[in-house]
Amino acid sequence: MTEQAGDRLGEFGRIERFFRPLAVGVPGAFDLTDDAAVLDIPADQQLVVTTDAMVSGVHFLPQDDPADLAYKLLAVNMSDLAAKGAEPLAYSLVTALPRAVGDEWVGAFAGGLGRAQKEFKVNLLGGDTVATSGPLSLTVTALGLVPFQRMIRRKGARPGDALFVTGHIGDAALGLKLAQGTLTSPVADNDRAYLLSRLRRPSPRLDFVASLRVFGTAALDISDGLIADLRHLALASKVRLHLDARAVPLSAPALRVLLSQPALRSLMLTGGDDYEVAFTAPQEKAEDIAAAAASAGIAVTRIGKVIEGDPGLDVSGTEGMSPDFGIGGWRHF
Amino acid sequence: MTEQAGDRLGEFGRIERFFRPLAVGVPGAFDLTDDAAVLDIPADQQLVVTTDAMVSGVHFLPQDDPADLAYKLLAVNMSDLAAKGAEPLAYSLVTALPRAVGDEWVGAFAGGLGRAQKEFKVNLLGGDTVATSGPLSLTVTALGLVPFQRMIRRKGARPGDALFVTGHIGDAALGLKLAQGTLTSPVADNDRAYLLSRLRRPSPRLDFVASLRVFGTAALDISDGLIADLRHLALASKVRLHLDARAVPLSAPALRVLLSQPALRSLMLTGGDDYEVAFTAPQEKAEDIAAAAASAGIAVTRIGKVIEGDPGLDVSGTEGMSPDFGIGGWRHF
Repeated sequence: MTEQAGDRLGEFGRIERFFRPLAVGVPGAFDLTDDAAVLDIPADQQLVVTTDAMVSGVHFLPQDDPADLAYKLLAVNMSDLAAKGAEPLAYSLVTALPRAVGDEWVGAFAGGLGRAQKEFKVNLLGGDTVATSGPLSLTVTALGLVPFQRMIRRKGARPGDALFVTGHIGDAALGLKLAQGTLTSPVADNDRAYLLSRLRRPSPRLDFVASLRVFGTAALDISDGLIADLRHLALASKVRLHLDARAVPLSAPALRVLLSQPALRSLMLTGGDDYEVAFTAPQEKAEDIAAAAASAGIAVTRIGKVIEGDPGLDVSGTEGMSPDFGIGGWRHF
Repeated sequence: MTEQAGDRLGEFGRIERFFRPLAVGVPGAFDLTDDAAVLDIPADQQLVVTTDAMVSGVHFLPQDDPADLAYKLLAVNMSDLAAKGAEPLAYSLVTALPRAVGDEWVGAFAGGLGRAQKEFKVNLLGGDTVATSGPLSLTVTALGLVPFQRMIRRKGARPGDALFVTGHIGDAALGLKLAQGTLTSPVADNDRAYLLSRLRRPSPRLDFVASLRVFGTAALDISDGLIADLRHLALASKVRLHLDARAVPLSAPALRVLLSQPALRSLMLTGGDDYEVAFTAPQEKAEDIAAAAASAGIAVTRIGKVIEGDPGLDVSGTEGMSPDFGIGGWRHF
């Protein structure tokens, strides 16, 4: 095995220096010195497991800031837990790194993970590091806890329920266009920074987890795009969802972009990478949900309802949007 | 997204057809239709978590049989559980596939996983499938159970303990030379088949798990090579290990290869990929261990002892082996 100029530490040295500090919060991670980690699961809780991988050139660009990547990698996995009503417990990490990736990159990546861990109150459990001749890829398996039989499924929405979403939708889709340089109209610096940050540092809605467990009948996080993911929820619950596109919450920076490029509105509803939670809940709980959201400091907006009918999604309020709107994203799994 | 000739099913179709059947044994996997899986952990048990990744061109060759890859991927993860005294519970899988990998390959891979699952009594929990421009890579996070505080660590060996290993050592190293075409002496067909099978289908020692928990003071599985892994165990336990190289159990096919190429003996002790369990246990338990091994149908051989002294490894019985013997593998983590 030859060593590169930027690779003085070696695999063992990198684990010891960069990753071991991330595991100090988990006694059963044994400072990453054993073959496996061990965890206690409280007797009244169940274990929730989710896995998300990110590949350079597919999910991010090689030149992206390693601290941003670290943040997003952890955030998208925490978002899955949050949408299932689970509290984060710990995570394992696999890094497949090309030889050209040096210690400096790994250090910046691990530093970003450390800051994200603190924010999400979760710690590294273990993992594996492998070399690859291909693109850098990163895999997290996140473990969470829910009270017994309280995981919120995609299945469970009932006709009569209202449909809600946290935060704002579509910022990341605009952020991606900014990152790709394909947004033609000028965007103010503040708005640009905001939209890019929504793409690079999504906010898993961990502060809403307890309320979601109280009120939610079905939920998922928006990763493939609002339209596609609402269809997933409708099919899993075997109900018809009605989405009022006019009710979908948009941020002020996004609204300013739409003023000059109104055609981007459909992209915002299909673009994905929002990592907000869409959920259904009994209509009569709407006020309680609003109060819970306010107390958690999270915007929650009613965007539609669950109706009788064939499983699927209806969308109203799409006047002026392209005629094939709502079809995109359907095949994206 | 363009579709290839061999890729008619698409990601969703592949999950439904090939991977969903692997998850039927885990009710909380929800047929792979939700964002996360949920598992019950019995109140008197702890959760053990381990992760191993395999990358084409690093850990296997592109032309390798997909069913063999599936077997090995699951086996190496089960081996980590077995060496920690844990019973398999479930596993998650991430596949990063180049576009050129078609449905036929994925079907053969999943079929191999299904057969391996049955053998190891474990089921698929969930995971992620991503596209990659690079080599095919496969990641498993395996979950297991141990009774409370009974995980066997690398740490825990005590001076006076005896050192044991399951099965035979070095078959996989010879199998790799056969696969690479670098074994110069002729090898009988039966022996060739046996040695290649030890490389491609290692046997995680799950049938010895309960006995290991009873007798073991420290343990790990041999993946980096016997010499390197015994050093890992010695350093983690802060003890000196004495290995008698003459006592290391070699299979009859391997012994026949050594007859014509005795110089390969050192390779067998350093080559790795054995996935046998090395463990320490009180010397006075040797007879009980032999009885337990016989009843489990697993060979267990005493190969050395734990002695006082600086943490590290002594090796005796290396007469005729190369002078730098025992140094190799040390940096491999």
